[in-house]
Amino acid sequence: MACCGNCFCCRCCCSEGETRTPEELTILGGFQDEEDEILPRKDYESLDYDRCINEPYVELLEGMDNKKAKKYEAVRWMLMFAIGVTVGLVGLFVDFFVRLFTKIKYTLVADSLQQCSDRGCLSVSLLELLAFNLTFVFIASVLVLVEPLAAGSGIPEIKSYLNGVKVPGVVRLRTCLCKAAGVLFSVAGGLFVGKEGPMIHSGAIVGAGLPQFQSITFKKIKFDFSYFRSDRDKRDFVSAGAAAGVAAAFGAPIGGTLFSLEEGSSFWNQALTWKVLFCSMSATFTLNFFRSGINFNKWGSFQLPGLLNFGEFKCPDEDKNCHLWTVVDLAFFVLMGVVGGLLGALFNCMNKTLAKYRIRNIHPKAKFIRVLESLLVSMVTTVVIFAASLLLGECRDLYSPTTHNTTLSGSEDINSTIRQFFCTNKTYNDMATLFFNPQEAAIHQLFHQDGTFSPVTLSVFFLLYFLLACWTYGVSVPSGLFVPSLLCGAAFGRLVANILKVKLGMDIYPGTFALIGAAAFLGGVVRMTISLTVILIESTNEITYGLPIMITLMVAKWTGDFFNKGIYDIHIQLRGVPLLEWETEVEMDKLTANDIMEPNLTYVYPHTRVQSLVSILRTTVYNAFPVVTENRYNEQDFMKGNILVSNNIRFKKSSVLSRAGEQRRRCQSMKSYPSSELRNVCEEHIAAEGERGEDLLQQMLERRHAPYPNLYPDQSPSEEWSMEERFRPLTFHGLILRSQLVTLLIRGVCYTENQSSATQPRLSYAEMTEDYPRYPDIHDLDLALLNPRMIVDVTPYMNPSPYTVSPNTHISQVFNLFRTMGLRHLPVVNAVGEIVGIITRHNLTHEFLVAKLRQHSISV
Amino acid sequence: MACCGNCFCCRCCCSEGETRTPEELTILGGFQDEEDEILPRKDYESLDYDRCINEPYVELLEGMDNKKAKKYEAVRWMLMFAIGVTVGLVGLFVDFFVRLFTKIKYTLVADSLQQCSDRGCLSVSLLELLAFNLTFVFIASVLVLVEPLAAGSGIPEIKSYLNGVKVPGVVRLRTCLCKAAGVLFSVAGGLFVGKEGPMIHSGAIVGAGLPQFQSITFKKIKFDFSYFRSDRDKRDFVSAGAAAGVAAAFGAPIGGTLFSLEEGSSFWNQALTWKVLFCSMSATFTLNFFRSGINFNKWGSFQLPGLLNFGEFKCPDEDKNCHLWTVVDLAFFVLMGVVGGLLGALFNCMNKTLAKYRIRNIHPKAKFIRVLESLLVSMVTTVVIFAASLLLGECRDLYSPTTHNTTLSGSEDINSTIRQFFCTNKTYNDMATLFFNPQEAAIHQLFHQDGTFSPVTLSVFFLLYFLLACWTYGVSVPSGLFVPSLLCGAAFGRLVANILKVKLGMDIYPGTFALIGAAAFLGGVVRMTISLTVILIESTNEITYGLPIMITLMVAKWTGDFFNKGIYDIHIQLRGVPLLEWETEVEMDKLTANDIMEPNLTYVYPHTRVQSLVSILRTTVYNAFPVVTENRYNEQDFMKGNILVSNNIRFKKSSVLSRAGEQRRRCQSMKSYPSSELRNVCEEHIAAEGERGEDLLQQMLERRHAPYPNLYPDQSPSEEWSMEERFRPLTFHGLILRSQLVTLLIRGVCYTENQSSATQPRLSYAEMTEDYPRYPDIHDLDLALLNPRMIVDVTPYMNPSPYTVSPNTHISQVFNLFRTMGLRHLPVVNAVGEIVGIITRHNLTHEFLVAKLRQHSISV
Repeated sequence: MACCGNCFCCRCCCSEGETRTPEELTILGGFQDEEDEILPRKDYESLDYDRCINEPYVELLEGMDNKKAKKYEAVRWMLMFAIGVTVGLVGLFVDFFVRLFTKIKYTLVADSLQQCSDRGCLSVSLLELLAFNLTFVFIASVLVLVEPLAAGSGIPEIKSYLNGVKVPGVVRLRTCLCKAAGVLFSVAGGLFVGKEGPMIHSGAIVGAGLPQFQSITFKKIKFDFSYFRSDRDKRDFVSAGAAAGVAAAFGAPIGGTLFSLEEGSSFWNQALTWKVLFCSMSATFTLNFFRSGINFNKWGSFQLPGLLNFGEFKCPDEDKNCHLWTVVDLAFFVLMGVVGGLLGALFNCMNKTLAKYRIRNIHPKAKFIRVLESLLVSMVTTVVIFAASLLLGECRDLYSPTTHNTTLSGSEDINSTIRQFFCTNKTYNDMATLFFNPQEAAIHQLFHQDGTFSPVTLSVFFLLYFLLACWTYGVSVPSGLFVPSLLCGAAFGRLVANILKVKLGMDIYPGTFALIGAAAFLGGVVRMTISLTVILIESTNEITYGLPIMITLMVAKWTGDFFNKGIYDIHIQLRGVPLLEWETEVEMDKLTANDIMEPNLTYVYPHTRVQSLVSILRTTVYNAFPVVTENRYNEQDFMKGNILVSNNIRFKKSSVLSRAGEQRRRCQSMKSYPSSELRNVCEEHIAAEGERGEDLLQQMLERRHAPYPNLYPDQSPSEEWSMEERFRPLTFHGLILRSQLVTLLIRGVCYTENQSSATQPRLSYAEMTEDYPRYPDIHDLDLALLNPRMIVDVTPYMNPSPYTVSPNTHISQVFNLFRTMGLRHLPVVNAVGEIVGIITRHNLTHEFLVAKLRQHSISV
Repeated sequence: MACCGNCFCCRCCCSEGETRTPEELTILGGFQDEEDEILPRKDYESLDYDRCINEPYVELLEGMDNKKAKKYEAVRWMLMFAIGVTVGLVGLFVDFFVRLFTKIKYTLVADSLQQCSDRGCLSVSLLELLAFNLTFVFIASVLVLVEPLAAGSGIPEIKSYLNGVKVPGVVRLRTCLCKAAGVLFSVAGGLFVGKEGPMIHSGAIVGAGLPQFQSITFKKIKFDFSYFRSDRDKRDFVSAGAAAGVAAAFGAPIGGTLFSLEEGSSFWNQALTWKVLFCSMSATFTLNFFRSGINFNKWGSFQLPGLLNFGEFKCPDEDKNCHLWTVVDLAFFVLMGVVGGLLGALFNCMNKTLAKYRIRNIHPKAKFIRVLESLLVSMVTTVVIFAASLLLGECRDLYSPTTHNTTLSGSEDINSTIRQFFCTNKTYNDMATLFFNPQEAAIHQLFHQDGTFSPVTLSVFFLLYFLLACWTYGVSVPSGLFVPSLLCGAAFGRLVANILKVKLGMDIYPGTFALIGAAAFLGGVVRMTISLTVILIESTNEITYGLPIMITLMVAKWTGDFFNKGIYDIHIQLRGVPLLEWETEVEMDKLTANDIMEPNLTYVYPHTRVQSLVSILRTTVYNAFPVVTENRYNEQDFMKGNILVSNNIRFKKSSVLSRAGEQRRRCQSMKSYPSSELRNVCEEHIAAEGERGEDLLQQMLERRHAPYPNLYPDQSPSEEWSMEERFRPLTFHGLILRSQLVTLLIRGVCYTENQSSATQPRLSYAEMTEDYPRYPDIHDLDLALLNPRMIVDVTPYMNPSPYTVSPNTHISQVFNLFRTMGLRHLPVVNAVGEIVGIITRHNLTHEFLVAKLRQHSISV
């Protein structure tokens, strides 16, 4: 397997250290010194969003009328609804148990504290809390050992997947179970992690799994689900699932839809987007329905939109001068955006260093080390929470415990979550209120508590939270980042509000500042734009926050981008995933397709011997093989019966015929047209045509040089050839995938030499895709069952019309085509139809392009 | 100009009656009998969203470093902000004057009514009202005479433009002025029209115009605005402007962004979407800022989001059992959706019949007839309003004129707009309250009035409004359709609520039903999906309405689509605009590119004489010409110096060289690899290469057949040729536009026969695009200034790498590529690089595809 350097899209055949051959290192030269940089790995494949319209697919279409198409459409809608509901239920499950465990934990510990504050046995309370937290975190951590992909927030994985990278295992059921159960325990265990990221990941898995699951369960009703067995449909359903995950997490169906668009879909498909929105709505309202029913016993009403919501920002009715924000505040919001961007960049930088340290020093070691790290983090977090609450809190007056309490989304009272530890009546311990509550409650406190928090408390809280959250993200437990970032940012925002209101005496609404602070910090960390804006607007349920949130996020992103990437992109980069950006930089247009393509190709012929195919498949790691014919001039007879050739002649002929007909008609109408140079010509032609007519065309077609070449099937590229033969001009006819070739061989699709290719057995679309997504390997093939002298006609199964580009094409056009159409392989074909190279995802990553551009500018 | 039938994308050279040649009628055969059907006209061009990366553009790029690119980016942001603010100001202008005029009108008439109800002089009041309304409508109608495109809502035009159709004059300043001023008067004139559609159109024009305007004003600061002079950038700015229009009209920045995505952008460009959202936000908040300042004198706060908003849906605080909607209500919402869809379909059907009648009977006549029609509509509307208010209204009790009035978005009181005509104190005239108010106030009444409306009043109101609104839409005044539809639907919804609440005694919130009724009817009429959902959610500022609104719109759309298309699509169809749908039907994949392409092409050679070019340009109406060379085998020497040929050889050579190198390396590494068939081959090669090396490659390249043919410049396709010569195989090298050829000729870009093509003057990108968007015509060219024997080398200016498809490509792939990339011409190139046809928008319209499919299934 030392051949890895040659693969343009190879399987995961190399260990991580060996991914770069000397040649690549030359290309990527400049990066050698910065040994920190992790380059995109070549062992990730693309998903194939483009449909391969080969003969089996066309057959499938022939049986497809509008009625059947409508049936498929209806099934799609039902699946979308099912995905939405399931995601909502997953959210409900996580939420219910987190609440339950947290409630038990805090009730017991609070009781113990109450008793101990008198008796001085605080260490017992601490031990109790530690016992709870360590147990929960231990369970979460063990679940991640079962399925390592369940670690972290899952957003990097989903982002990669939606970007078109096939990350192995990322959408498997086991991952979903471990993630959902794991996040429950890691949140209940008091770690500074959120459940929103894992919700999104779980949603995506539900999206990927449900349509497949149906195909197993409902086999009896004979619904032809093979139609959905393609990367294209799976990716659509994953988009919908991820969107539903966001929708359930934040109660933000529109935000969820935009999330899946922003992170994934490269082209705007209205029908799909509409379905995704429906799926998101289903998720939001399923969750809402059950939560309202369970928590408030108000079945049938909808009062608790998402797992996380920000409560209602509202001026008290009687205060006519109160306003949520004014145009003056915008200036502060911009400044807060800058600070948020800086803090976010710092967070990302620290987390990146930590992640690299983990990759180098923890991952190679035994797995239990990771569990130990999780437990250590949990212990430190618990101790910090406990100590800070008891030692650093200040007792503050309750603002106005009278009539109009700002209400939390219906019924929960903001004052029900304050903590009075060691404080007398009518006052509360501000640090404990923030630390000794679920994070959502703490966010509510910062957003809506009319009482004050001391600046010292807020600063200490921010600092501790910042450091611990940064340490926690990357530990091997399922861990979201949204809620910790929001809480951290809210503390910062509330601090700013405190300073402005108390010190400067400005008339502001502190909740707005807390919200903007949260947005600024979150924006600085994750650097999402459109979807985050909409998610936050939907979470606040207040459209007038649109402008300030957007401006803050914009400024935070710009500031942060000055220093480093968003946290998810950093983690994607650390994993070496070849993510494609949105567009290439303008500079890249100095390169053309010819500069970046991979010229090393292995070809197959339309008719190839089984032995050649097997040898090609066994000795190469390519995933696609161009189907080519050679340009020889002396073998015109052979080509007559070939479908490719006759097709091409047909195209040419019909084109020529209609042109001739048109010409005739045009000439007739042109007789009345004065001063036309065409006139004489036309008249001549009419005369000429009368005599020669069709024969001429026939002659012309016959006389043309033969573009279609030797198709003798016993010559295949991998046999013993001279150099000259190997590199003769090759006309491109189509592209066939490794998985298709293996399927053909395993199912014995071939014919014997003395028969015509029409005798070859035909496979249906369902048979071709039956093994999706895990196609058999060529090494699973039992050679004894195959006659190596048989011939395979690949033309019915190849993709006869992949999108191609000319070698002249500039990078921006290549990139747009590749990204927008969700391609996996893009053949580069020159002006005479010869294939000269192929472009895959790896030829379009930013790092590769930068290296090529450097090479280019040196050579120029 | 009888040649129109041949044009695949011709200028507006034919009058409407002549657009179909016999050939087309044959193709479109089945449609002949349904004489009602209006087929897409061939005189609409596509916009070109794909960049033409020719040499001038590459030169522009050479001078472009990242710093300069950032500068352009900054300018884009500034322009987006400027567009947003301007659109906001336009909205403010319209809103301010509508309010002013309406206030004056109603105050005077109400006074007069007050006096006359005692003295019995009601006819004087009616005359007063008539005088106002007729004057206003007359002004509006005259403005439309000045610019006919200002008529109607403008959404069909914007939809066509964003779809990629160049509708002449649709984004000109004059249209904007007439539209904005006209809608002001038509709304103030009491017609049943809205100002939202025209706002969107005005916004789009601002978007198109502002970047161009800048280029004139800021010429001094030497900013190179030629960069923005392309269809691509213009379309981006128009998207932003239209989004800003929606944002200003409904206070819905996210909805606006989604509107421009849904109607326009075919691919999801994150960077663009983010800018569009920013632009929309700017528009919303500019309008909000000024309206809050002007109306409430609260400068700096933001309380009046859009021109239209729905007020706050809110349960009274004290009523704990009140809920906006429950899961039970959903069933009613679905039913209302069905009814809304049916009513909408009826509305569309009636309006279509009316529009056809107008096209046949009114448009051909003198223009003042249209003004008369407007006046007639205005008169009838006025009389109906007046009579209905006085005669049909019932006096209803005010519900609870006590403390907690539901407040309208801040401060306006819902009870300030009730009308008491002839009713005693504490009661009000329900019909007058609906008819004798601005439409927005009537909508507020239906949504928020706690008092009741009698079922009879609501039914009569609905009926009258339905009929009059249907008649009004299409009259030659600027007229939106959103508000009338909403009002009509709200009456229907309120009626349902009345029945359920009063008759069946259900515990429902009537405002919700009014809202859902409005959504159902509007959805049934316009059939928008995603964006309408979001617009309505944003207008209510209540995220929990998401699900009911979405379900209602979905059901309404499905029901309506059963009968006919949306009203905007109907009007687009009536205008014969070749709109492209989102996707093709599954069935269409039975066709391939070969079946639908236009095979009649006129070619140019890379080097062509001036006289040939002029004759081609004068005798054809094509907008693009493939640049081709012929496949001859005996003239290899000539090709040496040609850039096309040497390029292609370079591509092939580099490909072969790196393959050879790779082969060598692979062989070395393969020595240790057992059982490889390649092994022997490799060893042989290494030996062979040692001897022959580079020479071999050189030989191979030399020996290859000459794919690049006779470039003798004096032979151009339009000269006197035999039939045989005319149809010889042609290798495709690029595409040049008519506008580019004319620019080259006008600027004298050519060289003499005895010099090399290098002596040809070079044009910069700025010079090439200077005349955008109105390029000179070939007939403006003064032939005396040109030497007809000079030769033009078009290769530097052509698009050397347009996207192409193979004739095998199935329609769904062709359609996706065309639609997604926003192409104008898509060459069809066969496997050996010969161009066999070209595909444009007209080959992809639904009607054309259906006709072709019918033809196909007959021939099969």
